[in-house]
This record gives sequence, C-alpha cells and structure tokens, in this order.
Amino acid sequence: MAKRRQSVSLQEEDAFKIVIDELIEEIIWHPTLGDTEVETWLLKMVDYTVPLGKQLRGRGVISAFKSFRGLTTKEDLKPIFVLGWCVELLAASFFIAEDIIRRSVKRRNQLCWHLVKDVGKSAISDSILLQDIMYFIIDKHFSGQPCHKPLVQLFHKCYFNTSLGQNLDARIGRMKDISEFTFENYNRVSKYKTGYFSFYLPLAIGKIMSDCGDIDPTEMRLIEDIAVDMGQLFMTQDDFLDCFGDPEITGRFATKIQGNACTWFIIKALSMASPEQEKILKEHYGQPGTDSANKVMKIFRALNLVDHYKRYEMQCYKSIMEKISNLPDSIPALYFSETLDIILKRDR
Amino acid sequence: MAKRRQSVSLQEEDAFKIVIDELIEEIIWHPTLGDTEVETWLLKMVDYTVPLGKQLRGRGVISAFKSFRGLTTKEDLKPIFVLGWCVELLAASFFIAEDIIRRSVKRRNQLCWHLVKDVGKSAISDSILLQDIMYFIIDKHFSGQPCHKPLVQLFHKCYFNTSLGQNLDARIGRMKDISEFTFENYNRVSKYKTGYFSFYLPLAIGKIMSDCGDIDPTEMRLIEDIAVDMGQLFMTQDDFLDCFGDPEITGRFATKIQGNACTWFIIKALSMASPEQEKILKEHYGQPGTDSANKVMKIFRALNLVDHYKRYEMQCYKSIMEKISNLPDSIPALYFSETLDIILKRDR
Repeated sequence: MAKRRQSVSLQEEDAFKIVIDELIEEIIWHPTLGDTEVETWLLKMVDYTVPLGKQLRGRGVISAFKSFRGLTTKEDLKPIFVLGWCVELLAASFFIAEDIIRRSVKRRNQLCWHLVKDVGKSAISDSILLQDIMYFIIDKHFSGQPCHKPLVQLFHKCYFNTSLGQNLDARIGRMKDISEFTFENYNRVSKYKTGYFSFYLPLAIGKIMSDCGDIDPTEMRLIEDIAVDMGQLFMTQDDFLDCFGDPEITGRFATKIQGNACTWFIIKALSMASPEQEKILKEHYGQPGTDSANKVMKIFRALNLVDHYKRYEMQCYKSIMEKISNLPDSIPALYFSETLDIILKRDR
Repeated sequence: MAKRRQSVSLQEEDAFKIVIDELIEEIIWHPTLGDTEVETWLLKMVDYTVPLGKQLRGRGVISAFKSFRGLTTKEDLKPIFVLGWCVELLAASFFIAEDIIRRSVKRRNQLCWHLVKDVGKSAISDSILLQDIMYFIIDKHFSGQPCHKPLVQLFHKCYFNTSLGQNLDARIGRMKDISEFTFENYNRVSKYKTGYFSFYLPLAIGKIMSDCGDIDPTEMRLIEDIAVDMGQLFMTQDDFLDCFGDPEITGRFATKIQGNACTWFIIKALSMASPEQEKILKEHYGQPGTDSANKVMKIFRALNLVDHYKRYEMQCYKSIMEKISNLPDSIPALYFSETLDIILKRDR
C-alpha cells in the first residue's frame, strides 16, 4: 500500500477528487464545442486517462502550497485543486504519448488508452488535446490574476523539459547496441523526463500561489535543484520496481528489460559484467518474452545489483537531505521530506 | 506556380526566411540543453519539418500586420517575423502528428518525418517538442510586453481548436461505414482543423501586434468568423486538388480516397449516387491502391462533381466577399481579399 501524504487530510483528498468532474463539465461547455460527438469523446477520454492514478503530482500541489502558506482555508484551496488537476492532465498527456512510443500494454492497471477499442493512433491527438485542455483551464481560471503569467510560463517550461527528456529517452531506447547506454545519458533523461513535471512543477505552483505570483528567481532555482534530484531518484526506483518489485503489486515484470529501456540496472550491469555475462546481456536485453528477461535477471542477481542499488539510493537520499537542511527559512522542508518519504516507501 | 502575396515584398520574404535560423540558434542555447546529442537532433528535426513549406501562414502574419498597421519599418517587422515562424512551428507540429495518424508517406515533396531513418514513433514527441519550442520563443521574446498575454492565450486557443478538429477528423476517418460521412461532421472538422491555425491565427496576431496587445473582442469575433469560412473553403479545395489536381504539381493522387478521408466529394457523391454507384463507392472507397481509387474517380466524374464543386466554391467565395465588404473601417480588407485570391488560384 502506497504511503499517504500526511500533510493533505482525507477531507482535502475527497474535496480534490470532486474537482476533476467540475473541470470536465467546464471543458464540455467550451465555446467551440456544443456537439454531442465531441463531448462524449472528451468525457470518455479524460475519464479514462486522468483521474485513476495515485495523484502523486496533483496532491503534491496541495501539499506544497500548504507547506508554503501555513494555515489555509477552503477558499484558498479551490484554485490549488484546479492546478493540481492541471498537473495531472499534463502527466496523462505524457503517459499517453509514452505508451504509444513504447508500445506499452498496461498503465495504472488497465489497458493503455491507444489499445482501447476505436482509439488507436488518434490517441496521439488525444495526448495533445489534454495539454490544450490544461492551458484552457489555466487561462479560464487565472487569466485576470498576477499569478497567470508565472503559471503559464512555468507550465511551458516544464512541458518543454519533459518533452526533451521523453524525446531523448525514445531515441536512446531505439539504439540497437546497448553498450551505448551510459550514465551520462541516463541522468539527463531522468532529470528532464521525470524531475520537472513530477516534483518541480507541483512545488513551483505551491510557491507561486502562496506568493500571489510574485516569485523570487533564487528561491525557484533552489526548489528546482532539489526537485530534479528527486526526479532522478524516482526514476531509478522505478527501474528497480520494474525488475525487482512484486509483480502482484506493480502489475508488471521486466517490461523495461523487454522494451530495451536504458535503465540504471543495465548500465550498472554492463560496467561490471564478465565477457560471458556481457555477451548474454547483449543477446537477451531488449528481446520480447520472459525467457530472455529471466536470463538478464539472472545476471542482475549474480552481480548483486540490488545491493549496489540500495547503496546508490542511500547516497541520493543523503545528498537530497543535505540540500534540504541548507534551505533558507522561506522554503519550508515539509513538502520535500514528506515527498522523499513517499518515494522511498513506495512499492509500485 | 503558387501565387505570391503582393503585400509582402521580396526583400521582406528574404528577411523573414533568415529569422528561422536565428530562432534555431536560440533554441539550442536553451538553458536546459547544452549537450551535442540533443542539439544535433533539434537542429535536424526543426530544419526538416519547419522551413520547407510555402509559408502561407507565416507570411500571412506579415501581410496581416502590414494591412492593420499601414506603413511599417524594419524594426516593426522583426517581432512579426518571429511570430510568423511560431505559426509555422505550430503548423509543423500538427503536420507531423497528422502524418503519423494517417500513415502518410510524403509531405512537402519529401518523406514524412516519421519515416526518416532513426525517427519512427519518436516523431510523436517531436510533434510535442515543436509546440514547446513555439511557447519558449513567445515567452522569450514577448514576456515583458503587453502583447504577451493575448498572444499566449491566442496560441492556446488556436492549438486547442485545431486539436479538436484533428481529433474529430481522425475518428471520422476510422469509420468503416462511409455512409456515416455527413456534411455536418465535415463542416465541423474543416472549421476547427484548418480555419483557426491557417487563417484566424495569422490575422489575430497581426491585429494584436498592431494594437500593442489592446484587443477589441468584437473585432476579433468578426476576424474569426471570416477566417473560419476561409478555412472551410481551403479544406474543400484541398479535397479537390487531391483527386482532380495535377499529380505532377500536387505530388499526390487520390490519397484521401485511398485513406478513407471524409471529403466534400465523397459526401456529395453519396448524396447523388444511384444504388449501383453507391455499392461501388462503399466497396472501393478507403481501399489502398489506384485500382480502387480509379473506380471511385469514375463515379465522381459520372456525377459531374467538378461542376458541383465549382458552384459550391463560387457560393463560398461570394459569401466571404460579402462579409468582407461589411467589415468596419478598423479592419482593412487587404489581408482577406489577398488571401482569398491566393487560396482560389492555388494549384497545390
């Protein structure tokens, strides 16, 4: 069972959940719509792809805002809930695109959107639509306010960086020769692909909203630095869960090995493998089916990669904790430590 | 040979062309980049997908601005050139996505981007990247100015509407039973998919920039109304060129018939066909290869569809001209009449 954010109450979680339905209503009343065919489709698409996840990022916005603002009222939180769903819309947009690129089968324990009947390649334009919906909501809810410009520019930036990471990842995953997988590329992908939208974006929204749009670039850079580190830790842990997690809980086994993904484990394995082990890795990594995956896993185990990973994880944790302890008083540590705790204790 | 915009001088066309190279330089100096692999990719991708077209939309921005502003200087035009390329970036982003969805082979007389070596499905994330680059450029060049907010909201709106049109189009194109193709759906697709980014966006940018960001909603609605009509005319004409144009010039023949596209011609044909003709249309429409396409074309010719189309085109033209003649003095007719002239005289 994934750990809950203690900083977000159960009542707040419930109140947050309802807001997505209100937002879908608003999208359907978009001035250019007004025909049943498009409405029905948008309803179905948003409903299938957005609300079912753990809402790590959406709830993160609430947690970040509360940690900056201190005491909050119901009125304070309403726009925060809206922005929380904007982050979840952005995440869903990327997941749809990623699942098509990777030919994934399942996401959040259900069939990937592009594999649902009557969807297919039009999922590409659904991925783009989710991004448009996100900007539509931001413009509609925040247009006259001082926070509008920093919010829009923040979403633009995070979208750009995530796309860069996704793009680099897609191209590395297509390399036929896995010996080209390097930690340099890996770190770059994990920084851009995960750090910005999963950790920097919720945090920066919390900061912008608590300061009513009046942002301090130095503070934002400190936030960015730690958030990006968290993203790297999160992605490496995702690699770990993919091959060493409990398939009953994660719903997957070695999908990254079969999908030729450039993971922390394959790079580490290649750096330590004997010539014979290297030969097996090159032959079986990136091949479909569990037979090949099991041969790769056998080598991962023989090389004690779990121990190496646990040491690496601890190093990352310590380094982030040190950065957190050096933060100025204007940036409370609560969001960071709580998020770190959730990341480290997650099992899926 | 496509007609030139008389309102944009040859010197201005040349000055415009150079700006894309300057913008690519800026993208490469994006703070999150700075590594050769990503740089090389972005250079190659933008170079392949953005500058090679007719720049109908990019040059349209220049023409629209000049028609609103009257006399212009070199300094006035620099930001207009930048925005012209933003519109071309948006167009390229949609074309990449559309070519993947439709499994197209050629675009602008070269292989579609997703079919280029080493690209494949990562073209999906390139399509998204082009959009991010567009917002990056807008934020970088216009962030401190009063026009920033209306520009960003305009691009958000046009992106959303175009996605809606693309989405609806993709889903209609997947219908197995072509008798579900209706003029109602067709008009909706052409309105959203083409009208906004091709005609409304350049015009509205010209208006916003000539008024320094101080926009009048009533004027914008008048502009939108005519631009959307132009989009519908443009798309129907594209359907015409696809089956009745000169393949030597258009570089294609009946790709829409083979691709099961919901065109003006198939809807019209179905509304007029005898039972036997209908049977042949249903059997051969949406089948790959020129044999089936020729059978469909034979019926299109037997039904005199070119005559019907020419009458329809003239009706559209008259209706748009009437709207133009009723415009208030604050909206000069030059852009509209010139663009209409270019649309009507195009052969590819």
